[in-house]
Amino acid sequence: MAPQYAQSLRFRLPPLLFFLQTGFIVVFIFYVDIEQNVQTKQHAFNNYYSEFQDVHVMVILGFGFLATFLVRYSFSGAGFTLLVAAMAVQWAVILNGVESMYHRGKIWINMRSLVVAEMCTASSLIAIGAVLGKTNPVHLLLIALLEISGFVLNGWLLQTFLKVQFLNTIMLLHIFGAFFGLMLSWVLYRQGSEQQHEKEKIDRKTGLFSVMGTLFLWMFWPSFNSVLVEVDHLDRGRSLRAVYSTYLALAVSAVTAAGFSVLTSPQGKLNLFHIQRCTLAGGVAIGVAMSAVHLPWVAMAIGFAAALISTLGSRYIKVRINKFLNCPWAFTISYYCFFLFQPLMLFAFECHDTCGVLSVHGLPGILGWMVQLFLQIADSDDLTTAVRFAVFHICTLLITLSLSMSLGLITGFLLKCNFWRPPQNKKCFDDQAFWEFPHLSGKR
Amino acid sequence: MAPQYAQSLRFRLPPLLFFLQTGFIVVFIFYVDIEQNVQTKQHAFNNYYSEFQDVHVMVILGFGFLATFLVRYSFSGAGFTLLVAAMAVQWAVILNGVESMYHRGKIWINMRSLVVAEMCTASSLIAIGAVLGKTNPVHLLLIALLEISGFVLNGWLLQTFLKVQFLNTIMLLHIFGAFFGLMLSWVLYRQGSEQQHEKEKIDRKTGLFSVMGTLFLWMFWPSFNSVLVEVDHLDRGRSLRAVYSTYLALAVSAVTAAGFSVLTSPQGKLNLFHIQRCTLAGGVAIGVAMSAVHLPWVAMAIGFAAALISTLGSRYIKVRINKFLNCPWAFTISYYCFFLFQPLMLFAFECHDTCGVLSVHGLPGILGWMVQLFLQIADSDDLTTAVRFAVFHICTLLITLSLSMSLGLITGFLLKCNFWRPPQNKKCFDDQAFWEFPHLSGKR
Amino acid sequence: MAPQYAQSLRFRLPPLLFFLQTGFIVVFIFYVDIEQNVQTKQHAFNNYYSEFQDVHVMVILGFGFLATFLVRYSFSGAGFTLLVAAMAVQWAVILNGVESMYHRGKIWINMRSLVVAEMCTASSLIAIGAVLGKTNPVHLLLIALLEISGFVLNGWLLQTFLKVQFLNTIMLLHIFGAFFGLMLSWVLYRQGSEQQHEKEKIDRKTGLFSVMGTLFLWMFWPSFNSVLVEVDHLDRGRSLRAVYSTYLALAVSAVTAAGFSVLTSPQGKLNLFHIQRCTLAGGVAIGVAMSAVHLPWVAMAIGFAAALISTLGSRYIKVRINKFLNCPWAFTISYYCFFLFQPLMLFAFECHDTCGVLSVHGLPGILGWMVQLFLQIADSDDLTTAVRFAVFHICTLLITLSLSMSLGLITGFLLKCNFWRPPQNKKCFDDQAFWEFPHLSGKR
Repeated sequence: MAPQYAQSLRFRLPPLLFFLQTGFIVVFIFYVDIEQNVQTKQHAFNNYYSEFQDVHVMVILGFGFLATFLVRYSFSGAGFTLLVAAMAVQWAVILNGVESMYHRGKIWINMRSLVVAEMCTASSLIAIGAVLGKTNPVHLLLIALLEISGFVLNGWLLQTFLKVQFLNTIMLLHIFGAFFGLMLSWVLYRQGSEQQHEKEKIDRKTGLFSVMGTLFLWMFWPSFNSVLVEVDHLDRGRSLRAVYSTYLALAVSAVTAAGFSVLTSPQGKLNLFHIQRCTLAGGVAIGVAMSAVHLPWVAMAIGFAAALISTLGSRYIKVRINKFLNCPWAFTISYYCFFLFQPLMLFAFECHDTCGVLSVHGLPGILGWMVQLFLQIADSDDLTTAVRFAVFHICTLLITLSLSMSLGLITGFLLKCNFWRPPQNKKCFDDQAFWEFPHLSGKR
Repeated sequence: MAPQYAQSLRFRLPPLLFFLQTGFIVVFIFYVDIEQNVQTKQHAFNNYYSEFQDVHVMVILGFGFLATFLVRYSFSGAGFTLLVAAMAVQWAVILNGVESMYHRGKIWINMRSLVVAEMCTASSLIAIGAVLGKTNPVHLLLIALLEISGFVLNGWLLQTFLKVQFLNTIMLLHIFGAFFGLMLSWVLYRQGSEQQHEKEKIDRKTGLFSVMGTLFLWMFWPSFNSVLVEVDHLDRGRSLRAVYSTYLALAVSAVTAAGFSVLTSPQGKLNLFHIQRCTLAGGVAIGVAMSAVHLPWVAMAIGFAAALISTLGSRYIKVRINKFLNCPWAFTISYYCFFLFQPLMLFAFECHDTCGVLSVHGLPGILGWMVQLFLQIADSDDLTTAVRFAVFHICTLLITLSLSMSLGLITGFLLKCNFWRPPQNKKCFDDQAFWEFPHLSGKR
Repeated sequence: MAPQYAQSLRFRLPPLLFFLQTGFIVVFIFYVDIEQNVQTKQHAFNNYYSEFQDVHVMVILGFGFLATFLVRYSFSGAGFTLLVAAMAVQWAVILNGVESMYHRGKIWINMRSLVVAEMCTASSLIAIGAVLGKTNPVHLLLIALLEISGFVLNGWLLQTFLKVQFLNTIMLLHIFGAFFGLMLSWVLYRQGSEQQHEKEKIDRKTGLFSVMGTLFLWMFWPSFNSVLVEVDHLDRGRSLRAVYSTYLALAVSAVTAAGFSVLTSPQGKLNLFHIQRCTLAGGVAIGVAMSAVHLPWVAMAIGFAAALISTLGSRYIKVRINKFLNCPWAFTISYYCFFLFQPLMLFAFECHDTCGVLSVHGLPGILGWMVQLFLQIADSDDLTTAVRFAVFHICTLLITLSLSMSLGLITGFLLKCNFWRPPQNKKCFDDQAFWEFPHLSGKR
């Protein structure tokens, strides 16, 4: 089977890559140009460029190395992330510029358009995290392009019909990506993968590479949350508040994730996946809730709650029923905790979420949304404003969830067809399906 | 014994984490707020933020990955550093703000307070380096909190009674951390660990991760030394001089460390630990001496001397008497070199300094202090100023050394008690005491 | 033989290091000072410092970890890069300042001089890439110093006699370094190494470290290409154009390299070396052609062509004739593609280019040069200007090529002598010839 499979990539991946890449270059020839009148914005640029690079580092290195944890899939984790990201930013630049092209005849490239494109790319990489190892690069590219199209459409709908601020729509990237990926992995679920896959393991070194990815995300998240605040509002005070809030939420998040990881472990030990992922939950939640957070302790409390929800989610949604029985009090607590998310858990039970995007991006994102709702209502002067805001805010979430889930379903069914030649079960989570290994030394 | 030990973490670590974290959040509710009047400081911020991030990268990634070199302790090295740092920055923000809280009723969070907090954290991570692998995370957290308390107290004493500039007190972080850690490791010394511990080894890959940590520290050290110069003096010229001096000192330091590493090796080979650590000695020494260094060649000479002292220290203090006999001329040279530090070496002989903090931070820090003394005296116009400065400068070192050593001793005795359940000898330097390994593949 | 060999380093490397380092310090005492009048350039500095650090990260971490891919040579890859870079920047600062010393009596250290020094260092690291593993650190140091001397001389010749802009001469660093290294590896070619060396392999983990180096280069390349544009022209618009062009060229380059890697593989699989290196070809080509590129799609097309030429070069120049026969159409295409470079290929056939610098830096650099030629001619108003430019431009390349090749030959013959004790064939690509391994655990 192996040579047959390899054939498929040769006549699937390069044509797709060259077709898309040539198409993008053609679009760039006719419609894209570099913004020239930067003289007046000189000051603004100085801030943006280093923050843009922080976001770039998070997307390429952070997500890339976060995906290297699988013991036999680390080349693919880092390599496919680079490939998908390089393609996705071009697509996102084009899609985000469609409105400007319609009104002004051109898509302009500037720091802001690149930052927004990187964020759309981050959203697609989250979706990809849910199906990593069970797909081939052709799948991943199609997922990324469709996810970004859906995400940009979602932002346009929310801004046009609900008058949601651009900044608030872009921060839904975690929720959109996570539920898109979850639906995908539900559709692409394979019967045989119920018992954990033989190769779906880490070793000491791939674990460490993955921790490195985590640390890059953890360190630069304040830039991720604050860069667009400044670009759009030109208000350094607001942008600094976002930096400090994210910094504190992440610090609390790291401490809390370690605490709950040990507390929920029967042997009282730390779990690497919790340190790797749940430490980041605070950044997700504060990113969504940001515009309503004014005090440092609120940010810290959000970080605490996000890490709590994320650690419990990672521990109990993944390991499922057999563990629950061993640990009755944890069951009770988490039962009430997750009461709200029960319907989601039902889906989760049927799917195989490689990187745990539900716990890391989905649940903390929804937590951030809820916190924003409560804080805004508490801040409102009168009831009418509060109710009005609540209705709009709830609609925002519902539209985002339904759009991401339905698009995830459609994408899943599209990719299920054998034309794309998905890897056989025994070739899942294995670099050898996609990489030449002639240079490898005997000891692997 | 393993399950009993694991139990201990479950009922020690999470309660401690949640108690401290909740306490910090409560303090933040009542006393901490974000500084708002940033409009006037807008320009200054532009410089700080990227330099703040460099410091952040050094603390989290640099120290974190520097600690991954032990072959079976790499998860702990990176993970515990993150956990301790996330806790320590919050504590340092609170402690450094106590004076402002007393006078103005609030602790203000701004870029400067975060940078100072990160530097205090760096100091505590240096102390932790001396006892890494022979402690559990509960120990590490307590050490970090006590060390930071002592370091902040030391700074306050020096500023209040000796009128030392804030910048000069903060740069003592290397000396304070190293001697605190040394005393700790002396108290926590175990009889059985005289012959080198079986697991206290590196392999090719953990060595490489550790070199990565070194490179991050090496590259960003100029920011570390210059950021507070600029924040406090608003003098770009002085801050640039600090950048260039540190850059040159580090370059010379790398060359010199390699040279002495080969020269002192009987087979004429490089030692990875020297490349990993002694290349950084120049940054330590120039950091302490900085305010008196005006010419580039002085910075280079300091880098040369620091790497010399650090390489010889690493080679001969660690390997001790049996090596000395094989190499009589090296003995003679280093005997005179270290004449001053003889009393310190006596302590060193009895203790087990995992990361070699004496050679990397302690000795180069004292060298920097001596250089500053000589340069300031040489720069003085008259004898009275010179003597006055010398007395104050010597008092600064004595207070710092005695405070750090006595606090290190107290902390050591506090932690020696069995209540904290230190790891048994055979569980030292082993991740399996603290981490779940269900996902690990068979080949480790 | 091993102890004898080790002896050689002890009495070769430290004396060389101390002699050079002391010499540099003496030069710094008499001729070098830090530029003080930065008050007026305050604004400019804000931009430079973070871009300078990006370049620093690329040189130290990027090139350092790119060189760690060999399974038994990873310590040397990262360690020797650090050692050589630390020495080379000092030498480059001195050499680049000779003219200023002649006219103004002093060499001034400022951000610009450090950035230029780092770029010269990058050039020497490219040359070293061609002979990595078959040389000892003494060789590497001498190569770096001679290569930098030649490169600075080349820049001076071009600026003085052909009035080429400084920025255009410095961007020839890829071409100069690659052909210097190629000639070196041709002279140092050993008969026995025709069949691929046993140790010249990667494993999963060293491959991943190397990918990390690639990603650092890939992410920060826009800073590398734009920093001097801004310093020299104080024109943010031009500098931004360089950033966007490089960003787009690299994105297209990554996609294209992956496409051609799969297309030219009989099993339709990706090759790690292509992902590692050919993704960077776009940055090389756009760097050389930059001053003539005004439209984003041109940058993308250059990225496409550079990745194409680089991937085909890597695949067919390395694997040579036996592969060609299996794949006749690829032979035909690449035959016409490489028609121009036929003479170069003849050399390449006889030499052993460890890091593939011909395909990664040499060919894309020449492609960039050709694109610049065509674009400038197309932009010219009249024939005279066009012809004049073409003549000067062709002379620039010919001078650079002949100087780099002849200096490479001379350096090669100089190093061939046994005085420098090159590693024996069986000690090539092995850390154990240069590093103490007492701390290593049994499992390596």
